Amino acid sequence: MKHREPGTEHELLFTNRVPTGDSMSRDICDRCGFIHYDNPKIVVGSVVTHGDRFLLCRRAIEPRKGYWTLPAGFMEHGETTEEGARREALEEANADIRIRDLLAIYNIPRIAQVQMMYRAELVSPVFSAGAESLEVALFAWDEIPWDQLAFPSAYWALKQFHSVMDQAVIAPFSNPEGELANSFPFR
Amino acid sequence: MKHREPGTEHELLFTNRVPTGDSMSRDICDRCGFIHYDNPKIVVGSVVTHGDRFLLCRRAIEPRKGYWTLPAGFMEHGETTEEGARREALEEANADIRIRDLLAIYNIPRIAQVQMMYRAELVSPVFSAGAESLEVALFAWDEIPWDQLAFPSAYWALKQFHSVMDQAVIAPFSNPEGELANSFPFR
Repeated sequence: MKHREPGTEHELLFTNRVPTGDSMSRDICDRCGFIHYDNPKIVVGSVVTHGDRFLLCRRAIEPRKGYWTLPAGFMEHGETTEEGARREALEEANADIRIRDLLAIYNIPRIAQVQMMYRAELVSPVFSAGAESLEVALFAWDEIPWDQLAFPSAYWALKQFHSVMDQAVIAPFSNPEGELANSFPFR
Repeated sequence: MKHREPGTEHELLFTNRVPTGDSMSRDICDRCGFIHYDNPKIVVGSVVTHGDRFLLCRRAIEPRKGYWTLPAGFMEHGETTEEGARREALEEANADIRIRDLLAIYNIPRIAQVQMMYRAELVSPVFSAGAESLEVALFAWDEIPWDQLAFPSAYWALKQFHSVMDQAVIAPFSNPEGELANSFPFR
């Protein structure tokens, strides 16, 4: 990894120590003092509906290959959270979506993730499997393959979405009480 | 920076290239294949009220030393977003706060930040300057030092908070239309 500011480019040489005025140890470059803060990562995704049906993607990659999930993934530099959620739907389902509002924020400290899930709609019923999906499909609520979902947060998001389906304005949900996504089965 | 899994600990030797199946270049360790995803960072903070007054901290550190801001800072590993917001109020203002709900999510792509701002209340009117603050004070709405605020997002959060002060359930705000915090003065 390189320090890339013009005129100062060099390989970073890290040692792990507590920066002055900080309370936690960090990886710090001995040459330039650059501090690598390893902060939690943001996952952006959405519950995408078309009429009364729900868009799900069957995963072509690990973890949980072969299981169904919502279009979601790591936010990138240079985009907003909403742009990230739209990009993920495009990448995983070749789907053009319109974001409505924020459904939920889930905290998964075990894997240092903050997941931001939106309510969204298909702009048109056109979709197909992207590179990271085996297949993509629209499911009626009663057809959702609950025991074949990839992640607890997909389960939470679908259930919470359904509970406020008729509400125009919602306060975003968080993890179900006491749930940190540490155990199966989902609930 | 070290790869720290037991039995495989070694200094990471990074080169910048596009991982298989990815679309962006990343720093990848040539020894073990570890990929360093440099994702946007999460800032957590809150608009803290006590009655009809607002808690602000005057910054003792750069950037914007000497200017007033909300208690907020980078989320750490092992905590939830709400725990992070409470920790920041404790560190910067020695204040014990109760989180009410999510006020806003701001995207600042220029500095790769996602800021999550909560509505919160002081548990008791006890506070003082933490290590990163010169002073901490409660301001009535008309006393807020608007031209001495440190960051656009502090300005946005206070204004948006005020506009929904009497509403129990709110959908979180985002950046004001067209605003990416690239320019002064704030608006």
